[in-house]
Amino acid sequence: MIKVAICGGSGYTGIELLRILSGHPAVTITAVTSERSAGKTIAEVFPHLSSLQELIYEPLIKEKLLSKADIFFMALPHGKSQETVHFFHSKKKLVIDLSADYRLSDPDIYKEWYGLPHNFTSTLKKAVFGLPEIYRNKIKKAKLVANPGCYPTGAILGLFPVIKNRIIDPSSIIIDSKSGTSGAGRKADLSISFCEVNEGFKAYVIGTHRHTPEIEQELSLLAGKKISVNFTPHLLPVDRGILSTIYAPLNKKSDTASILKIYKKVYTGEPFIRVLDEGIFPNIKNVKGTNFCHIGVKVNNRTKTLIIVTAIDNLVKGASGQAVHNMNLMLGLKETEGLKSSAVFP
Amino acid sequence: MIKVAICGGSGYTGIELLRILSGHPAVTITAVTSERSAGKTIAEVFPHLSSLQELIYEPLIKEKLLSKADIFFMALPHGKSQETVHFFHSKKKLVIDLSADYRLSDPDIYKEWYGLPHNFTSTLKKAVFGLPEIYRNKIKKAKLVANPGCYPTGAILGLFPVIKNRIIDPSSIIIDSKSGTSGAGRKADLSISFCEVNEGFKAYVIGTHRHTPEIEQELSLLAGKKISVNFTPHLLPVDRGILSTIYAPLNKKSDTASILKIYKKVYTGEPFIRVLDEGIFPNIKNVKGTNFCHIGVKVNNRTKTLIIVTAIDNLVKGASGQAVHNMNLMLGLKETEGLKSSAVFP
Amino acid sequence: MIKVAICGGSGYTGIELLRILSGHPAVTITAVTSERSAGKTIAEVFPHLSSLQELIYEPLIKEKLLSKADIFFMALPHGKSQETVHFFHSKKKLVIDLSADYRLSDPDIYKEWYGLPHNFTSTLKKAVFGLPEIYRNKIKKAKLVANPGCYPTGAILGLFPVIKNRIIDPSSIIIDSKSGTSGAGRKADLSISFCEVNEGFKAYVIGTHRHTPEIEQELSLLAGKKISVNFTPHLLPVDRGILSTIYAPLNKKSDTASILKIYKKVYTGEPFIRVLDEGIFPNIKNVKGTNFCHIGVKVNNRTKTLIIVTAIDNLVKGASGQAVHNMNLMLGLKETEGLKSSAVFP
Amino acid sequence: MIKVAICGGSGYTGIELLRILSGHPAVTITAVTSERSAGKTIAEVFPHLSSLQELIYEPLIKEKLLSKADIFFMALPHGKSQETVHFFHSKKKLVIDLSADYRLSDPDIYKEWYGLPHNFTSTLKKAVFGLPEIYRNKIKKAKLVANPGCYPTGAILGLFPVIKNRIIDPSSIIIDSKSGTSGAGRKADLSISFCEVNEGFKAYVIGTHRHTPEIEQELSLLAGKKISVNFTPHLLPVDRGILSTIYAPLNKKSDTASILKIYKKVYTGEPFIRVLDEGIFPNIKNVKGTNFCHIGVKVNNRTKTLIIVTAIDNLVKGASGQAVHNMNLMLGLKETEGLKSSAVFP
Repeated sequence: MIKVAICGGSGYTGIELLRILSGHPAVTITAVTSERSAGKTIAEVFPHLSSLQELIYEPLIKEKLLSKADIFFMALPHGKSQETVHFFHSKKKLVIDLSADYRLSDPDIYKEWYGLPHNFTSTLKKAVFGLPEIYRNKIKKAKLVANPGCYPTGAILGLFPVIKNRIIDPSSIIIDSKSGTSGAGRKADLSISFCEVNEGFKAYVIGTHRHTPEIEQELSLLAGKKISVNFTPHLLPVDRGILSTIYAPLNKKSDTASILKIYKKVYTGEPFIRVLDEGIFPNIKNVKGTNFCHIGVKVNNRTKTLIIVTAIDNLVKGASGQAVHNMNLMLGLKETEGLKSSAVFP
Repeated sequence: MIKVAICGGSGYTGIELLRILSGHPAVTITAVTSERSAGKTIAEVFPHLSSLQELIYEPLIKEKLLSKADIFFMALPHGKSQETVHFFHSKKKLVIDLSADYRLSDPDIYKEWYGLPHNFTSTLKKAVFGLPEIYRNKIKKAKLVANPGCYPTGAILGLFPVIKNRIIDPSSIIIDSKSGTSGAGRKADLSISFCEVNEGFKAYVIGTHRHTPEIEQELSLLAGKKISVNFTPHLLPVDRGILSTIYAPLNKKSDTASILKIYKKVYTGEPFIRVLDEGIFPNIKNVKGTNFCHIGVKVNNRTKTLIIVTAIDNLVKGASGQAVHNMNLMLGLKETEGLKSSAVFP
Repeated sequence: MIKVAICGGSGYTGIELLRILSGHPAVTITAVTSERSAGKTIAEVFPHLSSLQELIYEPLIKEKLLSKADIFFMALPHGKSQETVHFFHSKKKLVIDLSADYRLSDPDIYKEWYGLPHNFTSTLKKAVFGLPEIYRNKIKKAKLVANPGCYPTGAILGLFPVIKNRIIDPSSIIIDSKSGTSGAGRKADLSISFCEVNEGFKAYVIGTHRHTPEIEQELSLLAGKKISVNFTPHLLPVDRGILSTIYAPLNKKSDTASILKIYKKVYTGEPFIRVLDEGIFPNIKNVKGTNFCHIGVKVNNRTKTLIIVTAIDNLVKGASGQAVHNMNLMLGLKETEGLKSSAVFP
Repeated sequence: MIKVAICGGSGYTGIELLRILSGHPAVTITAVTSERSAGKTIAEVFPHLSSLQELIYEPLIKEKLLSKADIFFMALPHGKSQETVHFFHSKKKLVIDLSADYRLSDPDIYKEWYGLPHNFTSTLKKAVFGLPEIYRNKIKKAKLVANPGCYPTGAILGLFPVIKNRIIDPSSIIIDSKSGTSGAGRKADLSISFCEVNEGFKAYVIGTHRHTPEIEQELSLLAGKKISVNFTPHLLPVDRGILSTIYAPLNKKSDTASILKIYKKVYTGEPFIRVLDEGIFPNIKNVKGTNFCHIGVKVNNRTKTLIIVTAIDNLVKGASGQAVHNMNLMLGLKETEGLKSSAVFP
């Protein structure tokens, strides 16, 4: 059994790692940290994880954790992750970082969007962007994986086949995304209190969300030139799920069936991608609790536009599930190990 | 007191008319029809309208209704409204039609999108599109008003100031709209049952929704040329509200403050439009149950795009409230009569 | 126009007072306090109250407020209300207190349940419990009204007719109540954040909720002897509404129709009580945003038990609406003034 | 691999069986029936079960199904199950019936509550009530298991320890239950459409729900005498979960700690029961998607009442999960096989 540790185990991505890894047949969780819950068992703090009666939260003391595990998941806030990732990486441990700290390869862009300098730029160079559908081979050999953001995962997976195959003009992409409230994290905050969110719906940080440079970095690499996108996040009154509706001008006239063929070809054999048949579109409810990404497309020939819709669970494919997928790749395990369960519907 | 009748009073727009009109100081509801509930009082069928203990549903028998009222609201399904509207109009009654039957001035386009011929094209020519912010003066003199659809109301109000003032290129507009479930009507249908909708979110009829030609008709009139739009509706797991996120290329560089100035100028004195200050964006929760349209805008200069967000209550400003606003205009009453209440929040 | 002031105008009961009073034809709001929002307009802080563009939040400085209004609503936290109520009362102002500070006539019981001494016991003796259906005549003459708690309102109105008429044995009453989340107040608190409440349901503070002594005080008065009740509150994943399901042993065999007759007789002429017909039971959705209390009853002769179900909106009949009703009585206005609107459904 | 068939595979309990059994390591699903979806793959009809790409719905033709499986799950409507269960049972197949048809041992009571005669009373005598915590040994040897109803499961598990140990007076039990909407089944019905249920809450069929005799049958067996209960179901605006708040008079003074000790002793070693520590109460959100039953208790000595709260997922422990638990017992498999996953929270 491979020993895994989780740094930051009481936020939503942390407890999702606990849920998934506790059902993974090849690993055992040997340590999990939480400052606020240190000394308590997981089951005590989170009754939904009632089988974790033995595992006890501990404070994050790096030196003490070092010998406890072979692979470290970092579910810490942005900024706080930098140094801890560097520490475990420098000690030859495998690291999967769920924060944004190692996703942007250009430290200047990181500083611009996160307001912080990057203090470990040589480690940053070692980080592989953990999107298996694009970087599978690199991830297999990686020692440090920067797990993608939730919005970028859904956006990039939707655009990858058509940018790669030069089907659309990548200079006018619009990504209109809608996320469940767990994306805001587990915290006491009036703006995400039940009565403020329930029965409501709004856009926020239009054009200035921090996932924007991450999306642009990856799409630019695919397009082979620097591109900017319009990215608008919205807050959905649901627990989980991101639906992204993506608009891009077609380079030439086409039809839905032809475009679907491209998607199905590009994603052949991908265990977690489902390209839906013509006329069927994704619903976040169908991917809840799973590592799947559902994709539907539609050509609007009246406007020569391709509309792509993707659905993921922001905490699974958009965070902890993809992190476990990356772990499976890094460890040479079967890719779907620990990630096979279907969505609980309804 | 002016006598009003409602044809089709047991659907969501019908009961919303009952709610609003029963609190209107200048009118009295003299007749309301429902085939399925004929013979019962309103209060019996709808306990939330418990003050309507005397009013009794009756079947829709046109000749019998004729003498009962001066103004007729039609809240009938598309197609079924055509003949009834024509009847009351031909009998010199004021008519406000909440169906789509008299919104599209071109009967060929009506036939193309609704699959039905229009059998009363001379009456159709008399119909005024009931968007007071654009057609106030025409509505004041109208005998027949075609009340706009819910999606078109939010979309057109968002785009009117910038198309009129030539701020954007109207040929590449994207309208990404999200509607509460009451937009689907009051009916037994598995696809809108609680467990299918709750905790879900999806796009539907991408590019082919019947409100598309209505939006295009009005925007083309404003632009002075025929334009096509990308319009994608989504289903929100909330009762009420439509949020439309609209993207359009700017004709020249600008900034949010300058654009806001234009919106505030165009909508000066409008009793039901609220242009929000820079950095504030609409939330459907703030307009629930009201006739308001909240509008926020943002210039993204990285992509030279204007992003406009509008929020309305689909059953009020998007249907029955706007219908009462139109009635007030047709009757020369104060515009806000019966429509003054604030949103019930939370 | 009567001048009213609201102390504590940015919590949920405070903004509900603003919503209701701003539509009340006989009053004008002359002052409203909020420490955190002092200096801002209401419309700025609460976009759903967009018509309140002139009214500005001010800090609570008693001496400064004194001359501004004739009647003072106190929507302050428990404990904080004591002294402020006393101040305005001693200055001959009419006061309606929405906190619990003046509801319990016995200061020892107040101390036992709220953990605080009552420092104004002579003022406490002047307070009238503001449940109009029971204390109408006293309220009309009162200078200080203690507005009932939300749970007590629904529970007492359900039990009043059958305790008064000796239909049930009051010594074994069970009150199983379920409240919408707005009952917890407007605050940053993890336990009421969206993802913790949504799709969940739980009981809390079983047998120890602070509304218990308030219910027992009033039922004991009605029964003419000291009684204890089982009261269990639950948290519903909805914004508003309290449904109370109440069980009590019947003193002798009866049937639903006979019991309903008693309810209808007791509540004849009550403007805000709706006794539902046999076989129909209340739904919180039908009273949302209104001052109504819906009541349904059922006799279970297999167990000789009477089951009573009541539904109110916790923020209206359970707080701010009832406060306005009390104001109307104190001022000799029509009882329903400002409180006529129907529920916004769906 | 054991071959299993599901009769009635497109309702909510049917698709839940598909979800659970498709992840069960010891069985293979060889047949699943649905009249409305015959000919289609599961993945086509239910995108959340996208891994079931091969399995095809077929019509329910008993003779054809007979050879396909060793064990048959019946997820058919009440009444329709009788004959089909009898058929497979008479052909020596193992049968687990999720309908109510074989739960009530007295056919007269079945007729009284379901309005139908029972035509297979000799088969009825063979049926074992499938509540493993009480009937484990009988289930292990059973050929026909009547899987308990959702409400009875939560109610009986809450009362079993204290009736068995004579802690409470079983003649005055009150069971106040609240269920998620999936309990109403998957169907087109106005009363469970999103806008009618969302933001609402109500009691229904007070005192007359068909699960009443099932609860009474089991509690009477435990008490050793015939007892009647007050059972009130309510409809929660959530997908899944039943919370039952149960009230019973204590036979003698006690305290919460002592009662908890009894619960923990009775349920020692039970893989799916979690007795919560003092002061902690169940939340349906913590058991969603799992086979767990969480139990909390509280003694109210002011009223000499025991309050018990239980939470289950109505579709898992209340239906399909318990059915798989029963299968595991009948087949001599590990009890938790296929049922180990934790709740997806939030």
